[in-house]
Amino acid sequence: MAFFMKIALAQTNTTVGDFNGNVERIVKFARCARERGADLVVFPELALCGYPPRDLVEKPSFIARSEAELDRLAQLLPDIRALVGYVRRSGAEQGKQASDAAALLYRGKRVLDYSKILLAFYDVFDESRYFEPGNSAGLYAIEGWQLGVTICEDAWNDKNFWKKQLYTRDPVEEAVRAGAKLLLNIASSPFTSGKIRLRHDMLKAIAIERQVPVVYVNQVGGNDQLVFDGSSMAFNARGELCARAKSFEEDLVIFDAADGLGPKGEVEVRPGPASDVEAIYQALLLGLRDYVSKCGFAKVIVGLSGGIDSSLVVTLAADALGPENVLGVSMPGPYSSSASFRDAETLARNLGIDFRAIPIRSIFEDYLVTLDPAFEDRPRDATEENIQARIRGNILMALSNKFRSLVLSTGNKSELAVGYCTLYGDMAGGLAVIADVPKTMVYDLARYANRASERIPAACLEKAPSAELRPNQTDQDTLPPYDVLDVILRAYIEENLCAEEIIEKFRLDSELVEQTVRRVNSAEYKRQQAAPALKVTAKAFGTGRRYPIANKFSE
Amino acid sequence: MAFFMKIALAQTNTTVGDFNGNVERIVKFARCARERGADLVVFPELALCGYPPRDLVEKPSFIARSEAELDRLAQLLPDIRALVGYVRRSGAEQGKQASDAAALLYRGKRVLDYSKILLAFYDVFDESRYFEPGNSAGLYAIEGWQLGVTICEDAWNDKNFWKKQLYTRDPVEEAVRAGAKLLLNIASSPFTSGKIRLRHDMLKAIAIERQVPVVYVNQVGGNDQLVFDGSSMAFNARGELCARAKSFEEDLVIFDAADGLGPKGEVEVRPGPASDVEAIYQALLLGLRDYVSKCGFAKVIVGLSGGIDSSLVVTLAADALGPENVLGVSMPGPYSSSASFRDAETLARNLGIDFRAIPIRSIFEDYLVTLDPAFEDRPRDATEENIQARIRGNILMALSNKFRSLVLSTGNKSELAVGYCTLYGDMAGGLAVIADVPKTMVYDLARYANRASERIPAACLEKAPSAELRPNQTDQDTLPPYDVLDVILRAYIEENLCAEEIIEKFRLDSELVEQTVRRVNSAEYKRQQAAPALKVTAKAFGTGRRYPIANKFSE
Repeated sequence: MAFFMKIALAQTNTTVGDFNGNVERIVKFARCARERGADLVVFPELALCGYPPRDLVEKPSFIARSEAELDRLAQLLPDIRALVGYVRRSGAEQGKQASDAAALLYRGKRVLDYSKILLAFYDVFDESRYFEPGNSAGLYAIEGWQLGVTICEDAWNDKNFWKKQLYTRDPVEEAVRAGAKLLLNIASSPFTSGKIRLRHDMLKAIAIERQVPVVYVNQVGGNDQLVFDGSSMAFNARGELCARAKSFEEDLVIFDAADGLGPKGEVEVRPGPASDVEAIYQALLLGLRDYVSKCGFAKVIVGLSGGIDSSLVVTLAADALGPENVLGVSMPGPYSSSASFRDAETLARNLGIDFRAIPIRSIFEDYLVTLDPAFEDRPRDATEENIQARIRGNILMALSNKFRSLVLSTGNKSELAVGYCTLYGDMAGGLAVIADVPKTMVYDLARYANRASERIPAACLEKAPSAELRPNQTDQDTLPPYDVLDVILRAYIEENLCAEEIIEKFRLDSELVEQTVRRVNSAEYKRQQAAPALKVTAKAFGTGRRYPIANKFSE
Repeated sequence: MAFFMKIALAQTNTTVGDFNGNVERIVKFARCARERGADLVVFPELALCGYPPRDLVEKPSFIARSEAELDRLAQLLPDIRALVGYVRRSGAEQGKQASDAAALLYRGKRVLDYSKILLAFYDVFDESRYFEPGNSAGLYAIEGWQLGVTICEDAWNDKNFWKKQLYTRDPVEEAVRAGAKLLLNIASSPFTSGKIRLRHDMLKAIAIERQVPVVYVNQVGGNDQLVFDGSSMAFNARGELCARAKSFEEDLVIFDAADGLGPKGEVEVRPGPASDVEAIYQALLLGLRDYVSKCGFAKVIVGLSGGIDSSLVVTLAADALGPENVLGVSMPGPYSSSASFRDAETLARNLGIDFRAIPIRSIFEDYLVTLDPAFEDRPRDATEENIQARIRGNILMALSNKFRSLVLSTGNKSELAVGYCTLYGDMAGGLAVIADVPKTMVYDLARYANRASERIPAACLEKAPSAELRPNQTDQDTLPPYDVLDVILRAYIEENLCAEEIIEKFRLDSELVEQTVRRVNSAEYKRQQAAPALKVTAKAFGTGRRYPIANKFSE
């Protein structure tokens, strides 16, 4: 039996809780899909309220609003079938009060209402905290052809693709067994390095294994620490990629599901990022831009030390928000080198951002005088370094308060991991842009930022990293070389290896590894007061890594 | 059939990850139970590793250690049956790698191994994140009498006691149906105001409904933001309280389960707290003491403004740690009153703590001069207030760094809720002792602290609250009266009512309520960088309340 159906993949950028804005956006994309001749338009998971809504879902008023907005949306849509993710009142007597649902809207009505069966509860995902799982397949027939609807995690338990299953059920398999001839999966799957490729491979494998087309629509945009890359895709029943939306931008592409055997005409396949580094750079741009704008800010402030971290962050900010919205502040202290100051100044000029110098020496000396009686002739130590960092934090926050600009903090993942950073000092800020980027990747990103021209001065990439908080200081006075450190950190944090396994696997010095692991554990108290960090690795600090502070576990 | 059995309720204070210390403690209590003639000694949920271990459970090395330590413990125990909570390797092919388990150890062997069936996943609880649920009842026969073992949440789904069930199963009912003649529930149930009474009523109802004795052993001690009150209990089959351990202290009491009909001899029933205020005061003492000691500190520093909040916190610190371990620091600024300074000084003298004055005026003026060119003739606003608060934060942290003392931050829940506090300023510190205590309760606790003598000067309780950051400032310049504010906050935060419902329920001014709700929402970014706060209410900020920062939901 022949089957013709044009499906629009509507990859929207939603804002959590912004029902009005999200509805407007869904209607706009649905009209566009209709104009392009689509029979069905598909939106991401929880497109109506934004993902992740977190504890908003515990508010009865939020659930009521969600149901009402879905009804309102149904009346506003043009004459097209639309699959929309939303928070549904579960209605169950027992259990959670909501489910993570997909409604198929057509001519003012919900013609299908499906609740997600597999709820993710690991890493950054807390779905079981909020949602009652669904139980039955989401099937809907158009001209005798069954569509099988699933939501995000539902598709991530294929027993041929994964070595280990997290769940006993496979909703994709169930849908196909129940007769689905085409699979629709709506998702809010956050970016991490390598995940665009992983999703592609997994969805392709499902199409081939089940011999049905697979249409996957993923959210795009940043919501707090999560960045959704979009990269929506459709495969035909042979596993050939027949549609692909942009990564890191809103987009609408059409998949022509003729016979499920691939498109009759041209395919709309937009290229993805050319490299891992490019993908991470774009993820950071999007996460930064969306955090600033969704929090209601226009302008940002970055403290510029002349080092590589703040240079990268301010370059990202200029690219994301436009140089006119970025202020770079150099705050030279008693141990700052004039070379670093000049590098910061050059960088600001290269980017075309505002630049201001506010020396901290006088305030620092005042602190030392004021604290002198209390310090009781104790020798200098990290205390005096932290005072300088906190003076800078205070100055940046004062500018933020006075001019309503958001401070971006500039620490990288490697230093945050081992606590080589000052709480309330360089950690101060509304968003920690590169706090999930290991130092070695910071260099890669800085080179990428310079791909067209040298914006970040070469000296920033070449000189030995230093906090410049005491004379002749470099990071490697107290830390192992960053390439070694990053190997240990990745194994410990992302792969959960213990010290012994790391020593063996990488043939590293045992004291070095053990000391690093101890430093990671004892810096937990700092991280729990850190600004939100844009997640780009498999395991970021923040909501995805939940450790006790008072913890005596040693490996 | 007659049945005689002495059960020891061993209410231990465990430290997360401290296997050596916890094993030692379990052995010590088991010996004591044996000496007192007990046949069975019962320890709390996850007594072996401490609760909550959080993401430590994702480490294969942690699970392996847990299994090994249980085996080691089995060899160390005296000749007594011991029921011990531990993290068990699940062994399942699918799902999570661990379960939350109870092992009955006897003569070197595990004679029963039970996995928790109901896993809590709400508020501060993330159990489904880590554990695979068990499936079968935990029954063990002694002389023909079946004991039914359950773990914490397993007992919290009784369909007669609760209006609404969170789960479809009731493991207590299942154990009784399977023949249990006595119920053992091991728990790690954190304190919140009113919960000691709630547990008593629930356990008593279960004993009466099921007509079997109920023995409940709860952890005691503080682990990060959670305070476990202990208050272990045993009821006979008629629902009479026949044993009760202390609240907020380690304890061992014996329940003589003769015939399940209550004790032959004297019962060991220790009194609980005499009032809600006393319970909260004791919870804060324990949480503070344990956080400081389990993080490896001995001494603390508190900034003393002469206001009620810092006065209460420093009094708690002196009571918890001894006055010799507490330093009070007054940091008068340009708008501080001399009366406030004298109150702080008097308080320090009353408590017998160290006291030091470090004026901030000179540093403050230096900031103003330094920032003057950047501020471009803008009028004074909250910026200059925040600068003062952050200078104080920097000074306290400098003392902390120099002397390895922990800074206690002193903000209350009401101000944290509406953002009436300065990030990196008065919010700075390792532990936010009263950040879950509403301002109205702060007064009650201060009066309680003065019950034997006036330690906190009467003036601190009587004067109008003020941050003293600008001339003639009081909190009520910008906030509603605290008794009104606290009503709104409780309804909004703890009961999840929306603005409209609050206005109606309490007949309050709509603009007042809506503005308060907006303030709570817009201060989320501050709270996500706040120090851990000891939880004492049903809904504390921190891990139990997870909100998006970039959030446009308005009610």
